[in-house]
Amino acid sequence: MKPPVVVSVTGAAGQIGYALLFRIASGQLLGPDQPVILKLLEITPALDALGGVIMELHDCAFDLLADVQASDDAQVAFADTEVALLVGSRPRGPGMERKDLLEANAAIFSVQGRALDQVASRDVRVLVVGNPANTNCLIAQRNAPSLNPRQFTAMTRLDHNRAKAQLAEKVSTHVSRVTRLCIWGNHSATQYPDITNASVDGRAAGELVDAAWVSDTFIPSVQQRGAAIIKARGASSAASAANAAIEHMRDWLSGSGGEDVVSMGVCSDGSFDTEPGLIYSFPCHTTDCEWQIEQSWSIGEESRKRMMLTQAELIEERDAVRHLLPE
Amino acid sequence: MKPPVVVSVTGAAGQIGYALLFRIASGQLLGPDQPVILKLLEITPALDALGGVIMELHDCAFDLLADVQASDDAQVAFADTEVALLVGSRPRGPGMERKDLLEANAAIFSVQGRALDQVASRDVRVLVVGNPANTNCLIAQRNAPSLNPRQFTAMTRLDHNRAKAQLAEKVSTHVSRVTRLCIWGNHSATQYPDITNASVDGRAAGELVDAAWVSDTFIPSVQQRGAAIIKARGASSAASAANAAIEHMRDWLSGSGGEDVVSMGVCSDGSFDTEPGLIYSFPCHTTDCEWQIEQSWSIGEESRKRMMLTQAELIEERDAVRHLLPE
Repeated sequence: MKPPVVVSVTGAAGQIGYALLFRIASGQLLGPDQPVILKLLEITPALDALGGVIMELHDCAFDLLADVQASDDAQVAFADTEVALLVGSRPRGPGMERKDLLEANAAIFSVQGRALDQVASRDVRVLVVGNPANTNCLIAQRNAPSLNPRQFTAMTRLDHNRAKAQLAEKVSTHVSRVTRLCIWGNHSATQYPDITNASVDGRAAGELVDAAWVSDTFIPSVQQRGAAIIKARGASSAASAANAAIEHMRDWLSGSGGEDVVSMGVCSDGSFDTEPGLIYSFPCHTTDCEWQIEQSWSIGEESRKRMMLTQAELIEERDAVRHLLPE
Repeated sequence: MKPPVVVSVTGAAGQIGYALLFRIASGQLLGPDQPVILKLLEITPALDALGGVIMELHDCAFDLLADVQASDDAQVAFADTEVALLVGSRPRGPGMERKDLLEANAAIFSVQGRALDQVASRDVRVLVVGNPANTNCLIAQRNAPSLNPRQFTAMTRLDHNRAKAQLAEKVSTHVSRVTRLCIWGNHSATQYPDITNASVDGRAAGELVDAAWVSDTFIPSVQQRGAAIIKARGASSAASAANAAIEHMRDWLSGSGGEDVVSMGVCSDGSFDTEPGLIYSFPCHTTDCEWQIEQSWSIGEESRKRMMLTQAELIEERDAVRHLLPE
């Protein structure tokens, strides 16, 4: 047996956590021959419920689950962690302004960033799922100066998968036939799901759908999909978010391979004239724990406008929490 | 790509269903190269919520999910099904007597048995998860006379996994080191978790723990584990039940292999002097869509008593619904 890999999950007693932990423990994140130690972080009032989740993890008798630990202290939950999934965040409460929400989360993610800086494996890979994911990721990253900024990413894979499914349905093909589609910018309603470079069964997607469908139906329906799920299920996306987190991290660790791209919120290096330093979702290629932003795509005027719109929101979010970002 | 396999799941919008569907669609039931068509059954009032679950399944962009369909009609949901997971059942309502509960479920499972009889693949494999699982399974089986009784099973794998975990914790080893333990009888508080033939790291389990711990702690804690989970989590076991359903069915389809046994509620052939025809949990070996009851074990007096106690409950359950069992 290989030595176990430490995987940390925050917000572990929440709905996404519940959908995530059993898939990780059964080998879907790290592979069928890789033992895992789960280190789970929750706020103190949720530790009892987390205890129940841990009982259920034991009750699965997973061959690959070497150990599972719970804590309300990030310094404990991130000790030696190699894979950190930051799922927990403060949801918007009644009467809470957007700025208050950003600040409440900035407090959480600055603490977690410092803890990762101090106690995580030097090779840790971090995925932020908790919203506002891009800005939470920026805060964690900037509070972990001893780690490489490239070790921090935010999740737009759920949006990416939703966009693939919408396009596949529209052209009546299987979702696996859709490639080279991406999400630009923020994991929010300003995101830009872009099919300009997408292929379906080897044909350019733009030849198969008309521009009005893209702007009036496709883009808004991907942007608003989260709300549509809540309306239908009476609960927010949990299993599909957990699935996207697994796919994001698995592709990052093992490589997505081939010509296709995956959407990841990563630290901008100025590619496509984006603002350097922002956590911005780009089309990426991944190999062996590294990601590279796709560079060959040309950007039309309409795309440029949408890319800048979502960037403006990210800049605004960053500026709202600037006092909590170390220089 | 192989042709897809049809998998039906009842109670698909419930908590166990939610924990189950995404694992099936990601390949954990049938393997990483086997496409699947999901046919989902729900009661009419739950179809809207099920619609939300299906949206999330689409949003995962699973390569292996060839199609997903929802219905409130068992004749539709079981059409050509090869693997049927009967998860949904009527829970006990306030003031409901045990007999009323048995009858309410008998009505559900007789309809489903007849539908399987009429429209399922002739090779269908059926697992009943919904409680009272053994007697629900008996009813479905007896209402499907054109299928082989061996095609119907009830789930005691969650109890089996819980028992393994309890024993492993007691002797401070990893759960994967525990083998040849089994659950006898009913999936209820009368079940008999038996370590008489169990090994831990190659040593007889009986040499590692004392008899008082087995009778006073181990057996009751496995029997009452479901209630302990509800107390800790504030919700009943869902992810661990879904995991057990996947393991039960995967082992049945692909073979559990080796010397170890798995616990399955199956149609008694009189093995170990049990009452023929009851759906009774035995230690089983599985290979290639077949199961065989372990025959070599000798049964001591204490075990015999416990095995007959849980059998008495199964007989009582059967007799309470006898008017709904076709001859």
